[in-house]
Amino acid sequence: MKRRSSVIAGIRPHLPILDWGARYTGTQLSADLLAAVIVTVLLIPQSLAYALLAGLPPEVGLYASMLPLIAYGLLGSSRTLSVGPVAVISLMTATAVSRVAETGAMGPVEAAALLAMISGVFLLGMGVLRMGFLANFLSHPVIAGFITASGIIIAISQLRHLLGVDAHGDNLYTLLGSLISGLGQLNLATVAVGLPVLAFLFWVRGGLQPLLARAGLSPHAAAMASKAGPVVGVILTSLAAWVFDLAGHGVALVGAVPAGLPGFSLPSTDPAAWKLLLESAVLISIIGYVESVSVGKTLAAKRRQRISPDQELIGLGAANMASAVSGGYPVTGGFSRSVVNFDAGAETPAAGMFTAVGIGLATLFLTPLLAYLPKATLAATIIVAVLSLVDLSILRKAWQFGASDFVAVASTLLVTLLVGVEAGVACGVVASLGLHLFKTSRPHIAVVGEVPGTGHYRNINRHDVLTHPRILSIRIDESLYFANASFIEDQIESLLNARPEVRHVVLLCSAVNEIDLSALEALESINTRLEERGVMLHFSELKGPVMDVLGRTDFLDHLSGQVFLSHHQGVTRLAAECDEGGAAA
Amino acid sequence: MKRRSSVIAGIRPHLPILDWGARYTGTQLSADLLAAVIVTVLLIPQSLAYALLAGLPPEVGLYASMLPLIAYGLLGSSRTLSVGPVAVISLMTATAVSRVAETGAMGPVEAAALLAMISGVFLLGMGVLRMGFLANFLSHPVIAGFITASGIIIAISQLRHLLGVDAHGDNLYTLLGSLISGLGQLNLATVAVGLPVLAFLFWVRGGLQPLLARAGLSPHAAAMASKAGPVVGVILTSLAAWVFDLAGHGVALVGAVPAGLPGFSLPSTDPAAWKLLLESAVLISIIGYVESVSVGKTLAAKRRQRISPDQELIGLGAANMASAVSGGYPVTGGFSRSVVNFDAGAETPAAGMFTAVGIGLATLFLTPLLAYLPKATLAATIIVAVLSLVDLSILRKAWQFGASDFVAVASTLLVTLLVGVEAGVACGVVASLGLHLFKTSRPHIAVVGEVPGTGHYRNINRHDVLTHPRILSIRIDESLYFANASFIEDQIESLLNARPEVRHVVLLCSAVNEIDLSALEALESINTRLEERGVMLHFSELKGPVMDVLGRTDFLDHLSGQVFLSHHQGVTRLAAECDEGGAAA
Repeated sequence: MKRRSSVIAGIRPHLPILDWGARYTGTQLSADLLAAVIVTVLLIPQSLAYALLAGLPPEVGLYASMLPLIAYGLLGSSRTLSVGPVAVISLMTATAVSRVAETGAMGPVEAAALLAMISGVFLLGMGVLRMGFLANFLSHPVIAGFITASGIIIAISQLRHLLGVDAHGDNLYTLLGSLISGLGQLNLATVAVGLPVLAFLFWVRGGLQPLLARAGLSPHAAAMASKAGPVVGVILTSLAAWVFDLAGHGVALVGAVPAGLPGFSLPSTDPAAWKLLLESAVLISIIGYVESVSVGKTLAAKRRQRISPDQELIGLGAANMASAVSGGYPVTGGFSRSVVNFDAGAETPAAGMFTAVGIGLATLFLTPLLAYLPKATLAATIIVAVLSLVDLSILRKAWQFGASDFVAVASTLLVTLLVGVEAGVACGVVASLGLHLFKTSRPHIAVVGEVPGTGHYRNINRHDVLTHPRILSIRIDESLYFANASFIEDQIESLLNARPEVRHVVLLCSAVNEIDLSALEALESINTRLEERGVMLHFSELKGPVMDVLGRTDFLDHLSGQVFLSHHQGVTRLAAECDEGGAAA
Repeated sequence: MKRRSSVIAGIRPHLPILDWGARYTGTQLSADLLAAVIVTVLLIPQSLAYALLAGLPPEVGLYASMLPLIAYGLLGSSRTLSVGPVAVISLMTATAVSRVAETGAMGPVEAAALLAMISGVFLLGMGVLRMGFLANFLSHPVIAGFITASGIIIAISQLRHLLGVDAHGDNLYTLLGSLISGLGQLNLATVAVGLPVLAFLFWVRGGLQPLLARAGLSPHAAAMASKAGPVVGVILTSLAAWVFDLAGHGVALVGAVPAGLPGFSLPSTDPAAWKLLLESAVLISIIGYVESVSVGKTLAAKRRQRISPDQELIGLGAANMASAVSGGYPVTGGFSRSVVNFDAGAETPAAGMFTAVGIGLATLFLTPLLAYLPKATLAATIIVAVLSLVDLSILRKAWQFGASDFVAVASTLLVTLLVGVEAGVACGVVASLGLHLFKTSRPHIAVVGEVPGTGHYRNINRHDVLTHPRILSIRIDESLYFANASFIEDQIESLLNARPEVRHVVLLCSAVNEIDLSALEALESINTRLEERGVMLHFSELKGPVMDVLGRTDFLDHLSGQVFLSHHQGVTRLAAECDEGGAAA
């Protein structure tokens, strides 16, 4: 009996639904239902559009908006995150799927489902192993650069649907090239549909809300109603396509969408197929996870709730596996839909589950109406949505801040634009880690002296301080580890060569958080070399963890000098030993 | 005129020969000549043996010991480093060459020369770009683990020549497997040659020197003479092979070695061939460079000379390119031969050039004698040489020191043994960098209090200190950067949740050497969240470079609290503000 309850206690934190489900109220129910209706209306055109962006049939977008929402609702830790197809992940799916489809190994729909499955297994595995911290290695500026570049690529890739030309490509260069060479096939009827919708959607975004507010709606209701803009665009252009036979004028329509719920199907378990998609799936998982957690954290903070990064991995993993077995493609928590869900008053993950039911009903009964929907309308929806992701100000911000942040952002942005999304993410991670390692491999080293009368030691180049001609106080502003061990050895030697009268070197270690074995060897070599010149090596302000490590070796036994608790105490004692009157400015 | 002299002044540091050559004396000449004779005698069997290890014809080892020595002598910065074929690089060459030879793209000799060329171009390029610091990212423990594992693999791979069986493999598993399955072909005549030579060489290494010393030789002369052991082994077994017709008994001999100097030949410039070998060449270059610099530094320190890491890249790059165009294979500065050169009294790189002449003479006149040399003798030479590289004590040392050093060493050692040399190096670099990043992503964070009456602040868990109930002093023992930004955010929140009465958080930043853009965003978010709870955020002891960066942003304008020069001053002032009598232990 006791055993069973402890098993439940162990499982409980991994099933957030047990927590909120047990205290679910009628008020929460009505709030969740209202939010679900609003999100469903928004999600229908969005799901179709993102499937189009991913190079998949429109129903795949709808399928990815059902079961994944239920799976996330059961296991995810965010109360208001809305999971489903999103722009950047759709673009990354398009890249991976088209590459695999070219090899002839499998079709796009099959590849997309497999991608979702691998991604789900990967996310779930990371969650179970509590590896959520790995996402921290993707820095904010790198993500910002990546999202901005992806937004630009997505917007340009959708121009082909607005212009009715055939153009493809994974990066700015191939996209623009094929767009320009395709301009000869420009279809004016398509342009006549697409451009007005685009203009309408931009206006809705900026101008409709104040108009509705002036018409007497509350600001909140006006904001919600203006989210329905894409739906109005969908209805009007579908109607126009039907009335004016736009297909006959060469306007591409969505066409027949199969009615009914998706069937259950297990993606391939062929290792060769998994290997083909593994790298893409890992990148998609990481980007999707990082985006989703950042949205989830922002929303949770507004209501003083918390999300658990490892539980989010499990929730998103389950959502992707659910997507994979129900004919969908990779999903994650989307920013715009989550904000709508939140603003519409969703209280619990039940709102997501109700949304799934709403999409299910639409798939059962509304698909015949979607046949007349022009692709140009969907493209316009995408363009308006992704242009809000484009934020070049991160470049300026990073530039002001520091060279390495700027290089990381700029290289991620450029590589994503000019090579492609996968190379862009990889470049961002490598650049930011590489720059960090480079900086720590050449740490700042300051010669310090006493700010007169205070016992505080500061950089002699920045402050007016007292030094003693026979004592060299050096502050190393970094942990000592293999990458900087020999640099520090060289620097100390250079500093000493410039001051032949020095008899004591005191390393002020308040900023040394760690010493590894390579650094210990470097310190041993410094100690020996200084001893040969008749110079003693001392340490001051070594931290507890560092002293613990040194205490496990015989280094301190061989040290020519001493270890001082305080730098000032050490310098004072050494100065007294050397020469009473030798203190100079 | 002025322009020309400034060009010369610019080139001068890159042509060390201009420096020592201008002051070359007769004493130096005779010292260098003597060292060259001794090294030449040692180098002839070693060159043949390492070529055998690399899976190449014996003359390739001799060719790699001529032109490269001249090239390094002109451009290298070490006075006593001896360049040529070495054990670990030969093993890595064997791996790369056999992989490429299997594809049928080129033969082993051609592939080995191309490997030297790519390696040379890579090293030279790194030197010109002053990228020598990159070698610092290979930590000492990783190198020690790698060298030890390589030594074991090399020794086991040579058993086949001692036993006369056919066995191949890149790692312990395949090597032992093929050795055991080949035991049926065991050739007793080969064993009868090999084992006595092996025993003799081990005895020479340990027992000959004291014997010679007792016989009246000076310790130095005895040490030098004992280095000639391998040569004695070579002469005796060659003689035995000739007298007893060992080839007729199934003993493998070196066979016909073409007499004469190598011809000049340019390796392939086909990009596809370069691509095949690029990865191996890069790994070989890095390992070779790191080994060579470490030998060079050790020897230079003994005579108070210095070597220039970037100039070493240029010297080794030129040596490898010279090897490539003269029928050789990748070379680097070897430990044992450099020590012999040094101990034999070499004064300048001219000793290496004279050695090249000595090897050239041997190639011209001694090759007919080498035909009778048993391969088992060379294998015994290799085994004795590489077993001195095997030093498992690094495992114990790393274990005592710390978990991450141990994991880095152990994983490098195991992967090298069980998978192969290239995977081993890659694993070592990735493991040591990954562990370092992991540690810095979860930094040590201490709550600190005042050591009574000193104004010094120390960890409350390690020291008896004074704290104030409304003031939380937190010391972060790491730079703040993207990988730890959200960890630190979470930690501060947890610390604060456990102390609801706190009204002031003071971050003691003496160990914060850097703040990047992601960390700034985290600090902004901490500031906002604390402000919402009515808690003020302060900083103390921010370093100059960190203040510079923060000053370029508007962060300090939005900060709810203040920035204090000294932590003690800040806490004292805040305590006075809060509540005069509130200080508690």
